[in-house]
Amino acid sequence: MEFSSKLIEEAVNSFASLPGIGKKTALRLVLHLVQRPTEDSVHFARSIASMRENIQHCTTCGNLSDDHICSICRDERRDQSMICVVESIRDVMAIEDTRQFRGLYHVLGGIIQPVEGIGPADLNIDTLVERARKPECREIIMAISPTIEGDTTIFYINKLLNGIDVSVSNIARGVSFGGELEYADEVTLGRSIVARTQVH
Amino acid sequence: MEFSSKLIEEAVNSFASLPGIGKKTALRLVLHLVQRPTEDSVHFARSIASMRENIQHCTTCGNLSDDHICSICRDERRDQSMICVVESIRDVMAIEDTRQFRGLYHVLGGIIQPVEGIGPADLNIDTLVERARKPECREIIMAISPTIEGDTTIFYINKLLNGIDVSVSNIARGVSFGGELEYADEVTLGRSIVARTQVH
Repeated sequence: MEFSSKLIEEAVNSFASLPGIGKKTALRLVLHLVQRPTEDSVHFARSIASMRENIQHCTTCGNLSDDHICSICRDERRDQSMICVVESIRDVMAIEDTRQFRGLYHVLGGIIQPVEGIGPADLNIDTLVERARKPECREIIMAISPTIEGDTTIFYINKLLNGIDVSVSNIARGVSFGGELEYADEVTLGRSIVARTQVH
Repeated sequence: MEFSSKLIEEAVNSFASLPGIGKKTALRLVLHLVQRPTEDSVHFARSIASMRENIQHCTTCGNLSDDHICSICRDERRDQSMICVVESIRDVMAIEDTRQFRGLYHVLGGIIQPVEGIGPADLNIDTLVERARKPECREIIMAISPTIEGDTTIFYINKLLNGIDVSVSNIARGVSFGGELEYADEVTLGRSIVARTQVH
């Protein structure tokens, strides 16, 4: 791509450095900004820089936060007896969107993946054990992806929690609601038969 | 989408205000920036703001430019006798990428679209006529989209250039190179038969 302007070229390269954005899309975004008022671009740039400069990890749960302690951990109306353990902030948002859980979270920041060189020490696990020891904590809910790495992580954490007076649960696994049975994968379908729940 | 962080929310909204970027993609981009060093985001933000604050339109050709006069108009090695008239900077880049044209450009900033309320007065046409009057200018090449609006624009400009000692040409229209004939649209195929060129 030939650029007659260095300014445009640099802005295009900036956008194209983001995942999933190619040079053509980047150019489209830059030309869009050129057509909009200057303040729009300044506001855009400021919100990105300010986000990155000020964002921190909640010292309690590891969630991304504007402060030392995130808004969920600070919220006293939330059920302090339940901690839902997730991989990433994305999972926190997905669960919050369901409005089915009013407890607290604990963000591991990944799962154990020996192939990728991610071991327990790279994850936010020690602080989870500390939190589990507190008297107000009654239940740890594992909301981890049902994969081999996810199960390894659950198994590892379970072992650490052994001996602490807290119940540990997994989120339910089975066929998706609204999905047609014939399209469910074999493993899911097979396990959901084995793990059937009695109706009456 | 529930955000536990205002900073993340604002950055996501900024990205999602761009065309073709939804909230989910915006969140993916923001979380990517969070995982990268702070300097990356600061550099990203700075390149966007600086581009928008400093970019200008070349006073000669209307192309986007870092200075008063764009790098193409300033380049004395380029053929000063030919001016290629295009709709937008995107077309300048597309033609530059072909490396088949070493003359100058004139960017109209759009085409005549009465339905959208875009008339000749909204386009960069007066300066084109001025440039065409200069003795060094010998040929005006119309590289405008072959649509009804494009043809209207060409017709209008042609009328203005009437009486000025300059030749005016259109870029060739016909079936695409490498395309299969059966997939060419009817109008293109029909016209390319009418406008056939003699081989020997």
